[in-house]
Amino acid sequence: MDIKQLLSAIETELQKQVARLDAPRTNHFHEMLTYHMGWTGEGAGPEATGKRIRPILVLLATASCGADWKSALPAAAAVELVHNFSLVHDDIQDNSPKRRGRDTAWVKWGAPMAINLGDALFVISNQAIIDLKNNYPAEMVVSAAEILHNTCLDLTRGQFLDMSYEKRKDLGVEDYWPMISGKTSALLSACSHIGSLLGGADEEKQEVYRSFGHYLGLAFQVQDDILGIWGDEKVTGKSVASDLLEGKNSLPVLAGLGRRGRFAERWAQGPIKPEEVNEVSRLLAVEGGLLAAQDAAKQMTDLALKSLEEADPQGEAGEAMFELANKLLNRNQ
Amino acid sequence: MDIKQLLSAIETELQKQVARLDAPRTNHFHEMLTYHMGWTGEGAGPEATGKRIRPILVLLATASCGADWKSALPAAAAVELVHNFSLVHDDIQDNSPKRRGRDTAWVKWGAPMAINLGDALFVISNQAIIDLKNNYPAEMVVSAAEILHNTCLDLTRGQFLDMSYEKRKDLGVEDYWPMISGKTSALLSACSHIGSLLGGADEEKQEVYRSFGHYLGLAFQVQDDILGIWGDEKVTGKSVASDLLEGKNSLPVLAGLGRRGRFAERWAQGPIKPEEVNEVSRLLAVEGGLLAAQDAAKQMTDLALKSLEEADPQGEAGEAMFELANKLLNRNQ
Repeated sequence: MDIKQLLSAIETELQKQVARLDAPRTNHFHEMLTYHMGWTGEGAGPEATGKRIRPILVLLATASCGADWKSALPAAAAVELVHNFSLVHDDIQDNSPKRRGRDTAWVKWGAPMAINLGDALFVISNQAIIDLKNNYPAEMVVSAAEILHNTCLDLTRGQFLDMSYEKRKDLGVEDYWPMISGKTSALLSACSHIGSLLGGADEEKQEVYRSFGHYLGLAFQVQDDILGIWGDEKVTGKSVASDLLEGKNSLPVLAGLGRRGRFAERWAQGPIKPEEVNEVSRLLAVEGGLLAAQDAAKQMTDLALKSLEEADPQGEAGEAMFELANKLLNRNQ
Repeated sequence: MDIKQLLSAIETELQKQVARLDAPRTNHFHEMLTYHMGWTGEGAGPEATGKRIRPILVLLATASCGADWKSALPAAAAVELVHNFSLVHDDIQDNSPKRRGRDTAWVKWGAPMAINLGDALFVISNQAIIDLKNNYPAEMVVSAAEILHNTCLDLTRGQFLDMSYEKRKDLGVEDYWPMISGKTSALLSACSHIGSLLGGADEEKQEVYRSFGHYLGLAFQVQDDILGIWGDEKVTGKSVASDLLEGKNSLPVLAGLGRRGRFAERWAQGPIKPEEVNEVSRLLAVEGGLLAAQDAAKQMTDLALKSLEEADPQGEAGEAMFELANKLLNRNQ
């Protein structure tokens, strides 16, 4: 399976979708979208676009069910547009000045314009999923749209939980999974689910594909949490333990708080300062936060791979799905 | 046609749609939505919900084509949810502290939560339109969704133009219509368009219904612009000439600027102060801004009523459509 061919087709489809705003009076609006998507402006290029993992997952799922992935391109674009809509609004909500090394939309054009930019990406994702009508019966389009919309509501649920956790002091590991299921896992589930639907899989098979995406998302997020505290700065590109400085309610932290030891004591006293980071991350590791997260990552990885084996994806696309899963699940960046 | 019966059915459908977030961990999120919709919190009640003109228009259009309006309820809910999503984001973008006499969402819960609240209303509007699948063939659901999504992109276009006009000094009347077509008119067009589609109208008839909503929206907005400068404070509930104080690029203002007279001169010098408002609004009237807007309002009203006559809406619902149009077009508040 030539992933480069998929990537090139995905970019073409995304550009076609976003071109809906490429008109005389909305040229500048269109430019905002092409900047955020990584195609134009300073720092444009592969580093700025992101890895397009979600649309690749859609197309591989479709192809691994024995169908032509080209027909599923509008759905691949739709999930990537949803992802990017959520990033634009996320950056405003988190007050993040940089994304993939570049100024975020709200820094460049102000929050009001950036809210509208995110809204437009969201609308275009809806239009993209409806474009499936050119390739599939209307019933299938409705099913795909329904999966996408349910996923988007999960995203807003996850975002709500994440924001509402900021002021809470009583959080435990049990609060982690509902948040992550919405924020990270829902969209990856939707990718493998919609992909298999469009590949012609029956409902039972679709459910197995969906499970794969779900556990893949959970495993991926837990790994991300571990790297956010103990990752190698040279490899991850993020400053070491930045998640501790930001006070992020990651799995290692929530597990550590449950031990009610010295880490929990320090965490309760307020923000971690840069000079304390090494000591606090060491404390958290010693008190079991690292091990708990590693256990969870292993468990979710096993569940993801078990689902993928059960899905039994066919042909070159099936092999590529296993490769993608292994790459995402054993990553160190 | 008993409008009260429609209104009651609309509220029930809206509450059912919004209840998607009524779950243990997202109770507070659900409360945010029910507050914004006008059902809960301080000042809840008919004053806070707004007039629900858009969903009524959907149902009347469906019924006036001879079909059962009850089947169209999910679409009626969808357009009202789109309207409310746009209000929540609008209030953040405009920094508006009050909406229908109550604190806006961002004032109550901060901009990050309010962005997410708007996103959730938008997602639920998408889910509502897909709910039509229980009452209509999938092809019709896809068509209705497509109209709604195209309309939402028009909303973001209108919003973009409105915000990008804020810093411009070279605006003319020709810049007004594309902005208003997106901001006000697109959603009203979608209401009569989707309503007639679900009523079983053929494409030609749908286009006439769509035109009616389009011109109704334009006429309504121009009237709103006139009332925003010369309206009777006791009737409109807004302080007189508030649009002048806010520097709003309304039609009278853009027409007045085109005369390059004393009004244009004063406008170019910066924000209007409260003590100048009477003099500036008098100047604008003397220099033709009022008459130009009144002419445009009459023209758009005539086009709206001509379209409605051509649509030839049937039965009690048809009569109610004429009543609604006349009420909206002759309003003084």
